[in-house]
Order: sequence, then C-alpha cells, then structure tokens
Amino acid sequence: MGMKCVGVDVGGTSVKIGIFEITGELIHKWEVPTRQEEGGKYILSDTAASILKTLKELNIPLEEVKGAGLGVPGPVMPSGYVEVCVNLGWRDMYPEKELSEMLHGIPVKSGNDANVAALGEMWQGGGKGYDDIVMVTLGTGVGGGVIIDQKIVAGKHGLAGEIGHVHIRDDETESCNCGGVGCVEQIASATGIAREARRKMASNDTPSVLRAFGDNVTAKNVLDAAKEGDALALEVMEVVGHYLGLALAQISMVTDPEVFVIGGGVSKAGSFLIDILFKHFDKYTPISKNKSGIVLAKLGNDAGIYGAARLILD
Amino acid sequence: MGMKCVGVDVGGTSVKIGIFEITGELIHKWEVPTRQEEGGKYILSDTAASILKTLKELNIPLEEVKGAGLGVPGPVMPSGYVEVCVNLGWRDMYPEKELSEMLHGIPVKSGNDANVAALGEMWQGGGKGYDDIVMVTLGTGVGGGVIIDQKIVAGKHGLAGEIGHVHIRDDETESCNCGGVGCVEQIASATGIAREARRKMASNDTPSVLRAFGDNVTAKNVLDAAKEGDALALEVMEVVGHYLGLALAQISMVTDPEVFVIGGGVSKAGSFLIDILFKHFDKYTPISKNKSGIVLAKLGNDAGIYGAARLILD
Repeated sequence: MGMKCVGVDVGGTSVKIGIFEITGELIHKWEVPTRQEEGGKYILSDTAASILKTLKELNIPLEEVKGAGLGVPGPVMPSGYVEVCVNLGWRDMYPEKELSEMLHGIPVKSGNDANVAALGEMWQGGGKGYDDIVMVTLGTGVGGGVIIDQKIVAGKHGLAGEIGHVHIRDDETESCNCGGVGCVEQIASATGIAREARRKMASNDTPSVLRAFGDNVTAKNVLDAAKEGDALALEVMEVVGHYLGLALAQISMVTDPEVFVIGGGVSKAGSFLIDILFKHFDKYTPISKNKSGIVLAKLGNDAGIYGAARLILD
Repeated sequence: MGMKCVGVDVGGTSVKIGIFEITGELIHKWEVPTRQEEGGKYILSDTAASILKTLKELNIPLEEVKGAGLGVPGPVMPSGYVEVCVNLGWRDMYPEKELSEMLHGIPVKSGNDANVAALGEMWQGGGKGYDDIVMVTLGTGVGGGVIIDQKIVAGKHGLAGEIGHVHIRDDETESCNCGGVGCVEQIASATGIAREARRKMASNDTPSVLRAFGDNVTAKNVLDAAKEGDALALEVMEVVGHYLGLALAQISMVTDPEVFVIGGGVSKAGSFLIDILFKHFDKYTPISKNKSGIVLAKLGNDAGIYGAARLILD
C-alpha cells in the first residue's frame, strides 16, 4: 500500500474529512458536526479524534499518513496564523499546529477554504492536467482561488482570489457585504441572479414563466427558464454573463490562466452557462486568439477535502 | 571579486546592456544600435560581440559570468521560443539559445520586456524588499508585469501583466490598438491623458492654462497644471485616477501584491500621482484595511537591464 494523506474542510455546520492515496484517489470520506460552542474549542479535537478512529478502522497506521491539510473559512497567514474565523468562533490561533499535535505530530498545513477548493479542482477536478487555473465558485456568494504553477496564490493580505469582490458594475446602488458597491458577487451569485430577475420583472412587461414565482424566484428557476428559451430569463443571463465574462477577461490580463474553473450551485446549469460566459469573455479579450478556456468544476462539495489533502503534498 | 551577470534589453532603436554584480550593483552599462535589417539577424551577434569586447576591456573573464538575461519586446514562451517580434523583424526563433551559443555557452534566459522590467524594479528598484509586486508602466502605452514570490508570472498565453488591456471604461467609443474598446491604456497612458484633456477642453468652458496648448497638450502639461491647482487639469486627473485606481483595485482582488510599482514617463509626476491613484484604489477596496501600497518605480529606463540580469539568478 502506498502513502496516504488526509484532507479536512472545516465549515460552519460540519467538518468534512477525506482520506486519500497520495496519487489522488479518495479512499473514504465522512463528516463530523462543527461544535461552535466556547469559541469553537472542540472543533479540532473532535476532528483529530475522528481521524485517528477512522484510520484505525481502516487499518491505516499513522506511519503511512504523509500528513493532513486543513481548509479554514477565513484568512490564513503564511505562518499558519488565523486571526479570526467568524463562522467558527476562532480567534488568535494556529490551527495547523494544534491539529498536528493532536495527530501525534504528523505534518499539517492549512489554507483558506476557497483557495483550497481551487487547489482540489486543479488536482483531481475540472482543472486536472493544468498548472495554472482560476476557480470561481458561484454559490450564495462568489468565492475564488488563484493557482499558479500548482500552488495557491494567497496574496500578501489574504485577498488574492477574492473574485467576488472585484468591482464590476457601476450602475449598482445596493451595497455588498464587503462594504463596496457593484461587486461581482452582487450579480453572479445565486442571490444576485435571483435579484436581477426580480428587477427585470419589475421593470418590464416581458411575459415569462418566472413571473409565477414572484419574489421567490431562484437562480435555478432563472437558469431552467433560460435554457427553455424564456425571453426574460435570457435577458437576465445576458446581464450576468456580461459582467462575469468581463471580470474573467480582466483577470486573464493579470494572471492569464490556462482555464477558469466554474463551480458552485449556479454551475449546475452546465455548458449552457459556460457558453454564455465564454461569449462575453471572448468579446473583452480581443488582444489574442490564444486565451484561457472556461470549464466546469467536477468535485462539488468535495473540492475542499481534495484540495486540503493536496496541500500537504508539496 | 564576486560573480557577475549580464542584462540585455532589446528595443527597437537600441539594445541596452548592463554588467552587474550578482548582488545587484550595476558595474557598467552601455547601448548598441538595433540593426533591424534582414529580419533583425544581426541584433544578437552585434550584442554578443559587444558584450565579449566589453568584458575583456573590464578584465572580467567569462568564467566569472554566471549568465545573461534577455528582455525581448514580444511574447516569449516558457521554452524560450519567440514566434514573432514585430519591432525587431524576428520570427520563429530561440533567441536565448542563439545568444548563449554566441557567448561561448554561458546560460541565457529570456522573458518579455515588460515582465522583465517588473522583475528589475522588484530586485533593485521601487519594489526592492518585496516578493510580490505588480508593476504598471505609464508611457506612450501602458505595460505591466506581475511578480509573485520573486518570479515573473508570464501567463499561459503570454498575456499575464497586460494591465494596459484590462477593459475598464464602458463609455469609451474609440478603439484601442488591441482591438478592444475602453482599455486602461486608452485613459492612463501619456497619450490617453492628453486625449482626455483635449476632450475636457472641448466639452466645457472651465478656464485653464491648458487651453494655451490647444490640441498639442501633453500629459506633462496636464500633470504640471494639476499640481498647480488648475481646475480643468484636476478634472482630467480625477478621471484618470478613477479608472486606473479601479483597475488596481480589481488586480488586487486577483493576486493581492504587497505593492503596485508605478513607472514610465507619466510617473515623473511623483507622489502627486500616487496620492490620486491611492485615493481611488482605496475607495474600491473596502473589503480590508490591510491592502497593497502604491509606490514609484526607481530605475527608469534601466529597469529592463536590471530585470534581465536578475532572470539568470534563479
């Protein structure tokens, strides 16, 4: 048997854990609940106990484990220091050091969860076979991660890959959670797509199946209707595609990745979404015929455990 | 005596050459004319002959030269392949391999000149002491270079650092050289600043010292007048600062450098320009108080030879 590695993705509700061959095959995955009480002080010990128990059940001695990676929902300094993780109650700690001690000293490396998910997609997902990718996760919000030469670019202030907070839309009036106005997240997240649909319904009389949903319309409703040719839904997706495609074009003039990997719930719309994005991206990158591709993520919610496991392999 | 390295910056008019200590001190610099005839076939041999002659004059044996770096005015593939260099007449060649042979086999590494200049500023210029910078050169056009972990990010299609061709201005109607519309280069280059001044003069009646220059107004006129408080010149610089500051904000959400280094002729306006840029950059990065700084480049036209010499030290 070859060496193994462990990937841990800490979320606000549950901690996802996976055991992998170092060649990338997932051997076993499971979850433990995230206990947020008392500043999240039990999260790492619960995780460590569960890892040790599971390794034992699978007859994998700790000597066969190269190490563990840890995806954290907040900024992680290069030293492993975490100043604050709002969702977990963590403050002022070195989670990778703590987890390593709880796992009898095996190496542990940590990173921001969005960046770690991008690394996972590069390793075994939609970005497999590429060294340089930018991942964009279109969920409730918009997250991102930049990978260059198979490594996470975290940025000097932990802001690299904050694609959701690229200012892109000048005519936006509502504020974004970040304190800005007109961020990518406000238009290309599931929340943003639904809001754009509500705005379109309010501002014009185009007949649409979306009107039946009223203010409860979701991004999925919009994408399903757009695929069926619904005129208003297609208008919404043109606006979304315009701004997100433009943002990808801007990013490609900065790091010029081999591919953009699009993940998150909104990406379930598949090639229909990719085609809209590429059309607008292509329009804003006339400088060269050779340009980044846009592909779908493949790992879904497992991207985090894959990427965390990959962290330890450098 | 310690080891030396050579930096070569090939331009359309002259080839700049510098001999450096590997610790970064410039020992000697000079230029040779760029002979563009016959597809630029003499450029490298002229350069090599001049380097060998100068080393001899300086009593530096070739054994003390660690290698040479070569900045090329066009895209360079990771293999060193150059498909085309319009300004030089070069096509389909490996200049680093050719130059190495002409220099009796010492190692030669090449890179795009804008990227190489950024590396130079990181090594011994405005970005000295930082590992991660983004350089923006505001000259006739707008060039750029992205350095992460002291290395050039060239991009998979040679487009990384093409900051000048980030689309930023939706209400622009003229086309950019790249085929796009509304690029950073169209507003923040010396050419762009002068054009914006002509537009402002044509579209309003604000009294201004710039009116004396009429259609011959230059970016320097605008910056000089703005520093003196000229209302119309300040209007122009607010527009320029808005768009360039916004572009820097977008870039900082991608790679989050320690500092942006601003070079080129326009940067001679000094801290006056930096303050305007930072004001707008700061406005579009509300997500964190910890953010990139903006500093002036220091090496002027020598950035290319510094960066080329640095190329060989990895």
